[in-house]
Amino acid sequence: MPMPEAGDLVEQLVDALRCLPGVGPKSARRMTYALLTHNRDRARVLGHVLLEAVDKVGHCRRCRNLTDEEFCAICTSPRRDPELLCVVESPADVQALEQTGVYQGRYFVLMGHLSPIDGIGPEEIGIDRLAAWLGEGTVREVILATNATVEGDVTARFIADLAQERGIGSSRIAHGVPVGGELEYTDGGTLRHALTGRQKLSSGS
Amino acid sequence: MPMPEAGDLVEQLVDALRCLPGVGPKSARRMTYALLTHNRDRARVLGHVLLEAVDKVGHCRRCRNLTDEEFCAICTSPRRDPELLCVVESPADVQALEQTGVYQGRYFVLMGHLSPIDGIGPEEIGIDRLAAWLGEGTVREVILATNATVEGDVTARFIADLAQERGIGSSRIAHGVPVGGELEYTDGGTLRHALTGRQKLSSGS
Repeated sequence: MPMPEAGDLVEQLVDALRCLPGVGPKSARRMTYALLTHNRDRARVLGHVLLEAVDKVGHCRRCRNLTDEEFCAICTSPRRDPELLCVVESPADVQALEQTGVYQGRYFVLMGHLSPIDGIGPEEIGIDRLAAWLGEGTVREVILATNATVEGDVTARFIADLAQERGIGSSRIAHGVPVGGELEYTDGGTLRHALTGRQKLSSGS
Repeated sequence: MPMPEAGDLVEQLVDALRCLPGVGPKSARRMTYALLTHNRDRARVLGHVLLEAVDKVGHCRRCRNLTDEEFCAICTSPRRDPELLCVVESPADVQALEQTGVYQGRYFVLMGHLSPIDGIGPEEIGIDRLAAWLGEGTVREVILATNATVEGDVTARFIADLAQERGIGSSRIAHGVPVGGELEYTDGGTLRHALTGRQKLSSGS
Protein backbone atom coordinates (compact mmCIF):
# COMPACT_ATOMS: atom_id res chain seq x y z
CA MET A 1 0.00 0.00 0.00
CA PRO A 2 1.81 3.13 -1.11
CA MET A 3 -0.78 5.46 0.39
CA PRO A 4 -0.34 5.91 4.15
CA GLU A 5 2.52 8.34 4.69
CA ALA A 6 4.01 8.40 8.17
CA GLY A 7 3.48 12.10 8.71
CA ASP A 8 0.08 12.31 7.10
CA LEU A 9 -2.45 13.89 9.46
CA VAL A 10 -5.27 11.76 8.09
CA GLU A 11 -3.40 8.58 9.03
CA GLN A 12 -2.39 10.09 12.37
CA LEU A 13 -6.05 10.71 13.14
CA VAL A 14 -6.99 7.14 12.18
CA ASP A 15 -4.30 5.96 14.59
CA ALA A 16 -5.25 8.31 17.41
CA LEU A 17 -8.93 7.31 17.29
CA ARG A 18 -7.94 3.76 18.15
CA CYS A 19 -7.45 4.79 21.78
CA LEU A 20 -11.25 4.67 22.05
CA PRO A 21 -12.53 1.38 23.47
CA GLY A 22 -14.13 -0.84 20.85
CA VAL A 23 -12.67 1.11 17.92
CA GLY A 24 -10.51 -0.95 15.58
CA PRO A 25 -8.69 0.14 12.41
CA LYS A 26 -11.79 0.00 10.21
CA SER A 27 -14.05 2.04 12.47
CA ALA A 28 -11.23 4.50 13.12
CA ARG A 29 -10.90 5.07 9.38
CA ARG A 30 -14.66 5.42 8.94
CA MET A 31 -14.73 7.95 11.80
CA THR A 32 -11.82 9.89 10.32
CA TYR A 33 -13.46 10.26 6.91
CA ALA A 34 -16.82 11.14 8.46
CA LEU A 35 -15.28 13.81 10.71
CA LEU A 36 -13.16 15.37 7.97
CA THR A 37 -15.77 15.15 5.23
CA HIS A 38 -18.90 16.56 6.81
CA ASN A 39 -18.46 17.02 10.54
CA ARG A 40 -15.54 19.40 11.04
CA ASP A 41 -17.38 21.73 13.38
CA ARG A 42 -18.34 18.96 15.76
CA ALA A 43 -14.88 17.41 15.41
CA ARG A 44 -13.37 20.72 16.53
CA VAL A 45 -15.72 20.81 19.53
CA LEU A 46 -14.73 17.23 20.40
CA GLY A 47 -11.04 18.12 20.21
CA HIS A 48 -11.45 21.10 22.54
CA VAL A 49 -13.70 19.32 25.04
CA LEU A 50 -11.36 16.33 25.09
CA LEU A 51 -8.31 18.45 25.89
CA GLU A 52 -10.19 20.45 28.51
CA ALA A 53 -11.59 17.31 30.15
CA VAL A 54 -8.19 15.59 30.22
CA ASP A 55 -6.72 18.66 31.90
CA LYS A 56 -9.48 19.58 34.31
CA VAL A 57 -11.44 16.46 35.25
CA GLY A 58 -10.11 15.00 38.45
CA HIS A 59 -11.59 13.02 41.30
CA CYS A 60 -14.09 14.29 43.85
CA ARG A 61 -12.17 14.84 47.08
CA ARG A 62 -14.91 13.08 49.00
CA CYS A 63 -16.19 10.17 46.89
CA ARG A 64 -13.43 9.83 44.23
CA ASN A 65 -15.92 9.98 41.33
CA LEU A 66 -14.87 11.90 38.20
CA THR A 67 -15.63 15.63 38.33
CA ASP A 68 -14.18 18.94 37.20
CA GLU A 69 -14.97 20.51 40.58
CA GLU A 70 -13.35 19.93 43.96
CA PHE A 71 -16.45 18.01 45.08
CA CYS A 72 -18.92 16.27 42.75
CA ALA A 73 -22.57 17.17 42.25
CA ILE A 74 -23.82 14.25 44.34
CA CYS A 75 -21.54 14.92 47.31
CA THR A 76 -22.56 18.59 47.38
CA SER A 77 -26.28 18.00 46.84
CA PRO A 78 -28.33 18.74 49.98
CA ARG A 79 -31.04 16.41 48.71
CA ARG A 80 -28.99 13.22 49.08
CA ASP A 81 -29.42 11.09 52.20
CA PRO A 82 -26.13 11.34 54.17
CA GLU A 83 -26.89 8.16 56.12
CA LEU A 84 -26.60 5.88 53.09
CA LEU A 85 -23.27 5.23 51.40
CA CYS A 86 -23.07 2.99 48.34
CA VAL A 87 -19.61 1.67 47.47
CA VAL A 88 -18.96 0.93 43.79
CA GLU A 89 -15.94 0.09 41.66
CA SER A 90 -16.20 2.71 38.88
CA PRO A 91 -17.87 5.94 37.70
CA ALA A 92 -19.86 3.84 35.21
CA ASP A 93 -21.42 1.97 38.15
CA VAL A 94 -22.54 5.27 39.70
CA GLN A 95 -24.14 6.21 36.40
CA ALA A 96 -25.91 2.84 36.13
CA LEU A 97 -27.33 3.11 39.67
CA GLU A 98 -28.35 6.76 39.19
CA GLN A 99 -30.33 5.79 36.11
CA THR A 100 -32.57 3.53 38.21
CA GLY A 101 -33.71 6.65 40.08
CA VAL A 102 -34.16 4.49 43.22
CA TYR A 103 -31.10 5.37 45.27
CA GLN A 104 -30.98 8.67 47.16
CA GLY A 105 -27.82 8.28 49.21
CA ARG A 106 -24.20 9.09 48.40
CA TYR A 107 -21.48 7.03 46.71
CA PHE A 108 -17.89 6.06 47.24
CA VAL A 109 -16.02 5.12 44.07
CA LEU A 110 -13.10 2.75 44.64
CA MET A 111 -11.78 3.16 41.07
CA GLY A 112 -10.97 -0.55 41.10
CA HIS A 113 -11.08 -3.48 43.49
CA LEU A 114 -8.65 -5.24 45.81
CA SER A 115 -6.31 -7.39 43.76
CA PRO A 116 -3.08 -8.22 45.61
CA ILE A 117 -1.77 -10.09 42.58
CA ASP A 118 -1.83 -6.80 40.59
CA GLY A 119 -0.44 -4.83 43.52
CA ILE A 120 -3.79 -3.19 44.26
CA GLY A 121 -4.21 -2.99 48.00
CA PRO A 122 -6.45 -0.90 50.30
CA GLU A 123 -4.41 2.25 49.65
CA GLU A 124 -4.94 2.14 45.87
CA ILE A 125 -8.71 1.96 46.21
CA GLY A 126 -8.89 4.84 48.69
CA ILE A 127 -9.77 2.86 51.81
CA ASP A 128 -8.14 5.48 54.06
CA ARG A 129 -10.51 8.13 52.73
CA LEU A 130 -13.49 5.79 53.05
CA ALA A 131 -12.49 4.94 56.63
CA ALA A 132 -12.28 8.64 57.50
CA TRP A 133 -15.76 9.18 56.03
CA LEU A 134 -17.20 6.28 58.02
CA GLY A 135 -15.48 7.70 61.12
CA GLU A 136 -17.47 10.94 60.84
CA GLY A 137 -20.50 9.25 62.36
CA THR A 138 -23.17 10.23 59.79
CA VAL A 139 -23.29 7.04 57.72
CA ARG A 140 -25.76 4.41 59.04
CA GLU A 141 -25.56 1.83 56.28
CA VAL A 142 -22.90 0.92 53.75
CA ILE A 143 -24.35 -0.66 50.60
CA LEU A 144 -21.73 -2.79 48.89
CA ALA A 145 -22.31 -2.67 45.15
CA THR A 146 -18.95 -3.90 43.94
CA ASN A 147 -19.11 -6.33 41.01
CA ALA A 148 -20.26 -9.93 41.47
CA THR A 149 -16.73 -11.25 40.85
CA VAL A 150 -14.25 -12.87 43.21
CA GLU A 151 -12.37 -9.56 43.56
CA GLY A 152 -15.61 -7.61 43.99
CA ASP A 153 -16.76 -10.01 46.71
CA VAL A 154 -13.43 -9.86 48.55
CA THR A 155 -13.46 -6.06 48.38
CA ALA A 156 -17.03 -5.97 49.70
CA ARG A 157 -16.11 -8.29 52.58
CA PHE A 158 -13.12 -6.09 53.42
CA ILE A 159 -15.22 -2.93 53.54
CA ALA A 160 -17.99 -4.66 55.51
CA ASP A 161 -15.41 -5.44 58.20
CA LEU A 162 -14.20 -1.84 58.10
CA ALA A 163 -17.76 -0.63 58.71
CA GLN A 164 -18.35 -3.25 61.38
CA GLU A 165 -15.34 -1.99 63.36
CA ARG A 166 -16.97 1.44 63.42
CA GLY A 167 -20.37 0.05 64.42
CA ILE A 168 -21.91 0.69 60.99
CA GLY A 169 -24.15 -1.91 59.33
CA SER A 170 -23.54 -2.97 55.75
CA SER A 171 -25.45 -4.80 53.03
CA ARG A 172 -24.56 -6.38 49.71
CA ILE A 173 -26.74 -5.77 46.65
CA ALA A 174 -28.74 -8.85 45.65
CA HIS A 175 -27.37 -11.24 43.06
CA GLY A 176 -29.76 -13.54 41.28
CA VAL A 177 -31.68 -14.20 38.10
CA PRO A 178 -31.91 -10.95 36.06
CA VAL A 179 -35.44 -9.57 35.65
CA GLY A 180 -36.80 -11.00 32.39
CA GLY A 181 -34.17 -13.74 32.55
CA GLU A 182 -35.03 -17.41 32.22
CA LEU A 183 -33.74 -20.04 34.66
CA GLU A 184 -32.81 -22.30 31.79
CA TYR A 185 -30.27 -19.80 30.46
CA THR A 186 -28.91 -18.60 33.82
CA ASP A 187 -25.46 -19.80 34.85
CA GLY A 188 -24.93 -22.00 37.90
CA GLY A 189 -23.16 -19.39 40.02
CA THR A 190 -26.02 -16.94 39.57
CA LEU A 191 -28.60 -19.66 40.35
CA ARG A 192 -26.74 -20.57 43.54
CA HIS A 193 -26.87 -16.90 44.57
CA ALA A 194 -30.56 -16.76 43.66
CA LEU A 195 -31.32 -19.76 45.87
CA THR A 196 -29.28 -18.79 48.92
CA GLY A 197 -30.54 -15.20 48.69
CA ARG A 198 -34.22 -16.20 48.41
CA GLN A 199 -36.75 -13.89 50.03
CA LYS A 200 -39.66 -15.08 52.16
CA LEU A 201 -43.09 -14.43 50.63
CA SER A 202 -45.29 -15.81 53.44
CA SER A 203 -44.57 -17.57 56.74
CA GLY A 204 -47.05 -20.36 55.99
CA SER A 205 -48.67 -20.24 59.43
CA MET B 1 -31.45 11.67 37.30
CA PRO B 2 -29.92 14.39 39.40
CA MET B 3 -26.40 13.69 38.23
CA PRO B 4 -25.67 15.26 34.82
CA GLU B 5 -25.00 18.95 35.37
CA ALA B 6 -25.16 21.16 32.29
CA GLY B 7 -21.64 22.52 32.66
CA ASP B 8 -20.00 19.29 33.77
CA LEU B 9 -17.01 18.50 31.56
CA VAL B 10 -17.59 14.75 31.90
CA GLU B 11 -21.10 15.10 30.46
CA GLN B 12 -19.83 17.52 27.81
CA LEU B 13 -17.33 14.90 26.69
CA VAL B 14 -20.03 12.20 26.56
CA ASP B 15 -22.04 14.56 24.36
CA ALA B 16 -19.13 15.54 22.12
CA LEU B 17 -18.13 11.94 21.43
CA ARG B 18 -21.52 11.37 19.85
CA CYS B 19 -20.35 13.19 16.72
CA LEU B 20 -18.50 9.97 15.86
CA PRO B 21 -20.44 7.73 13.48
CA GLY B 22 -21.91 4.68 15.19
CA VAL B 23 -21.42 6.07 18.68
CA GLY B 24 -24.61 6.33 20.73
CA PRO B 25 -25.08 7.58 24.29
CA LYS B 26 -23.97 4.31 25.90
CA SER B 27 -20.74 3.90 23.92
CA ALA B 28 -19.98 7.61 24.35
CA ARG B 29 -20.21 7.20 28.12
CA ARG B 30 -18.09 4.07 28.08
CA MET B 31 -15.48 5.89 25.98
CA THR B 32 -15.52 8.89 28.32
CA TYR B 33 -14.88 6.79 31.43
CA ALA B 34 -12.21 4.75 29.68
CA LEU B 35 -10.39 7.86 28.43
CA LEU B 36 -10.54 9.68 31.76
CA THR B 37 -9.81 6.67 33.94
CA HIS B 38 -6.79 5.08 32.32
CA ASN B 39 -6.07 6.61 28.96
CA ARG B 40 -5.45 10.32 29.51
CA ASP B 41 -2.19 10.42 27.59
CA ARG B 42 -3.70 8.93 24.47
CA ALA B 43 -6.82 11.08 24.92
CA ARG B 44 -4.62 14.16 24.92
CA VAL B 45 -2.91 12.99 21.73
CA LEU B 46 -6.31 12.38 20.14
CA GLY B 47 -7.44 15.89 21.09
CA HIS B 48 -4.38 17.51 19.56
CA VAL B 49 -4.38 15.42 16.38
CA LEU B 50 -8.10 16.03 15.93
CA LEU B 51 -7.73 19.82 16.15
CA GLU B 52 -4.70 19.80 13.88
CA ALA B 53 -6.40 17.59 11.30
CA VAL B 54 -9.58 19.69 11.29
CA ASP B 55 -7.46 22.79 10.71
CA LYS B 56 -4.93 21.48 8.23
CA VAL B 57 -6.44 18.63 6.24
CA GLY B 58 -7.88 19.91 3.00
CA HIS B 59 -8.40 18.46 -0.44
CA CYS B 60 -5.68 17.61 -2.94
CA ARG B 61 -5.70 20.32 -5.60
CA ARG B 62 -5.52 17.69 -8.29
CA CYS B 63 -7.66 14.70 -7.20
CA ARG B 64 -9.74 16.18 -4.35
CA ASN B 65 -8.78 13.40 -1.91
CA LEU B 66 -8.15 14.37 1.74
CA THR B 67 -4.58 15.48 2.44
CA ASP B 68 -2.66 17.97 4.58
CA GLU B 69 -0.44 18.88 1.63
CA GLU B 70 -1.25 20.84 -1.51
CA PHE B 71 -1.13 17.62 -3.54
CA CYS B 72 -1.72 14.13 -2.12
CA ALA B 73 0.83 11.31 -1.96
CA ILE B 74 -0.72 9.45 -4.89
CA CYS B 75 -0.86 12.47 -7.21
CA THR B 76 2.79 13.32 -6.51
CA SER B 77 4.09 9.74 -6.69
CA PRO B 78 6.20 9.16 -9.83
CA ARG B 79 5.41 5.43 -9.60
CA ARG B 80 1.73 5.80 -10.48
CA ASP B 81 0.60 5.27 -14.07
CA PRO B 82 -0.55 8.68 -15.40
CA GLU B 83 -2.60 7.07 -18.18
CA LEU B 84 -5.13 5.48 -15.81
CA LEU B 85 -7.62 7.57 -13.87
CA CYS B 86 -10.05 5.91 -11.48
CA VAL B 87 -13.06 8.01 -10.47
CA VAL B 88 -14.56 7.28 -7.01
CA GLU B 89 -17.10 8.90 -4.75
CA SER B 90 -15.17 9.16 -1.48
CA PRO B 91 -11.75 8.93 0.23
CA ALA B 92 -12.90 5.63 1.79
CA ASP B 93 -13.27 4.21 -1.74
CA VAL B 94 -9.67 5.18 -2.56
CA GLN B 95 -8.54 3.39 0.61
CA ALA B 96 -10.56 0.27 -0.27
CA LEU B 97 -9.09 0.12 -3.79
CA GLU B 98 -5.55 0.81 -2.56
CA GLN B 99 -5.80 -2.12 -0.17
CA THR B 100 -6.29 -4.49 -3.09
CA GLY B 101 -2.80 -3.55 -4.27
CA VAL B 102 -3.93 -4.10 -7.86
CA TYR B 103 -4.43 -0.58 -9.14
CA GLN B 104 -1.42 1.50 -10.12
CA GLY B 105 -3.04 4.56 -11.69
CA ARG B 106 -4.29 7.80 -10.17
CA TYR B 107 -7.67 8.71 -8.64
CA PHE B 108 -10.23 11.44 -8.87
CA VAL B 109 -12.44 11.78 -5.79
CA LEU B 110 -15.85 13.30 -6.50
CA MET B 111 -16.69 13.69 -2.78
CA GLY B 112 -20.25 12.67 -3.64
CA HIS B 113 -22.33 11.86 -6.67
CA LEU B 114 -24.71 13.70 -8.98
CA SER B 115 -28.03 14.16 -7.22
CA PRO B 116 -30.09 16.99 -8.71
CA ILE B 117 -32.80 16.48 -6.08
CA ASP B 118 -30.27 17.43 -3.37
CA GLY B 119 -28.87 20.28 -5.46
CA ILE B 120 -25.68 18.38 -6.25
CA GLY B 121 -24.74 19.08 -9.86
CA PRO B 122 -21.50 18.73 -11.82
CA GLU B 123 -19.96 21.76 -10.12
CA GLU B 124 -20.32 20.28 -6.60
CA ILE B 125 -18.51 17.07 -7.55
CA GLY B 126 -15.62 18.89 -9.21
CA ILE B 127 -16.40 18.02 -12.83
CA ASP B 128 -14.68 21.21 -14.05
CA ARG B 129 -11.42 20.09 -12.48
CA LEU B 130 -11.85 16.55 -13.82
CA ALA B 131 -12.55 17.93 -17.30
CA ALA B 132 -9.40 20.04 -17.15
CA TRP B 133 -7.39 16.95 -16.14
CA LEU B 134 -8.83 14.91 -19.00
CA GLY B 135 -8.05 17.83 -21.33
CA GLU B 136 -4.32 17.57 -20.54
CA GLY B 137 -4.01 14.60 -22.86
CA THR B 138 -2.18 12.14 -20.57
CA VAL B 139 -5.14 10.01 -19.45
CA ARG B 140 -5.92 7.06 -21.76
CA GLU B 141 -8.63 5.33 -19.74
CA VAL B 142 -11.11 6.51 -17.14
CA ILE B 143 -12.18 3.72 -14.76
CA LEU B 144 -15.56 4.53 -13.28
CA ALA B 145 -15.71 3.12 -9.75
CA THR B 146 -18.65 5.09 -8.41
CA ASN B 147 -21.06 3.08 -6.26
CA ALA B 148 -23.48 0.57 -7.79
CA THR B 149 -26.47 2.78 -7.00
CA VAL B 150 -28.77 4.76 -9.29
CA GLU B 151 -26.85 7.97 -8.50
CA GLY B 152 -23.50 6.24 -8.90
CA ASP B 153 -24.54 4.85 -12.28
CA VAL B 154 -25.84 8.22 -13.50
CA THR B 155 -22.62 9.89 -12.37
CA ALA B 156 -20.52 7.23 -14.12
CA ARG B 157 -22.55 7.70 -17.33
CA PHE B 158 -22.07 11.47 -17.13
CA ILE B 159 -18.30 11.18 -16.76
CA ALA B 160 -18.08 8.54 -19.51
CA ASP B 161 -19.68 11.07 -21.90
CA LEU B 162 -17.24 13.73 -20.70
CA ALA B 163 -14.31 11.42 -21.50
CA GLN B 164 -15.86 10.39 -24.82
CA GLU B 165 -16.03 14.06 -25.94
CA ARG B 166 -12.27 14.28 -25.33
CA GLY B 167 -11.58 11.00 -27.16
CA ILE B 168 -10.75 9.09 -23.97
CA GLY B 169 -12.06 5.58 -23.36
CA SER B 170 -13.81 4.67 -20.15
CA SER B 171 -14.79 1.51 -18.31
CA ARG B 172 -17.06 0.68 -15.40
CA ILE B 173 -15.89 -1.68 -12.63
CA ALA B 174 -17.65 -5.03 -12.78
CA HIS B 175 -20.76 -5.65 -10.73
CA GLY B 176 -21.74 -9.22 -9.95
CA VAL B 177 -21.80 -11.97 -7.38
CA PRO B 178 -19.21 -11.20 -4.65
CA VAL B 179 -16.32 -13.65 -4.43
CA GLY B 180 -17.34 -16.32 -1.92
CA GLY B 181 -20.99 -15.32 -2.35
CA GLU B 182 -23.70 -17.82 -3.12
CA LEU B 183 -26.23 -17.32 -5.93
CA GLU B 184 -29.06 -18.32 -3.62
CA TYR B 185 -28.40 -15.35 -1.33
CA THR B 186 -27.57 -12.77 -4.00
CA ASP B 187 -30.20 -10.12 -4.74
CA GLY B 188 -31.90 -9.90 -8.15
CA GLY B 189 -30.25 -6.63 -9.22
CA THR B 190 -26.80 -8.06 -8.63
CA LEU B 191 -27.68 -11.30 -10.45
CA ARG B 192 -28.94 -9.32 -13.45
CA HIS B 193 -25.60 -7.47 -13.52
CA ALA B 194 -23.73 -10.77 -13.17
CA LEU B 195 -25.59 -12.21 -16.17
CA THR B 196 -25.34 -9.24 -18.51
CA GLY B 197 -21.68 -8.70 -17.56
CA ARG B 198 -20.69 -12.34 -18.10
CA GLN B 199 -17.21 -13.00 -19.46
CA LYS B 200 -16.44 -15.46 -22.22
CA LEU B 201 -14.36 -18.46 -21.11
CA SER B 202 -13.97 -20.20 -24.50
CA SER B 203 -15.26 -19.51 -27.98
CA GLY B 204 -16.52 -23.12 -28.40
CA SER B 205 -15.10 -23.49 -31.88
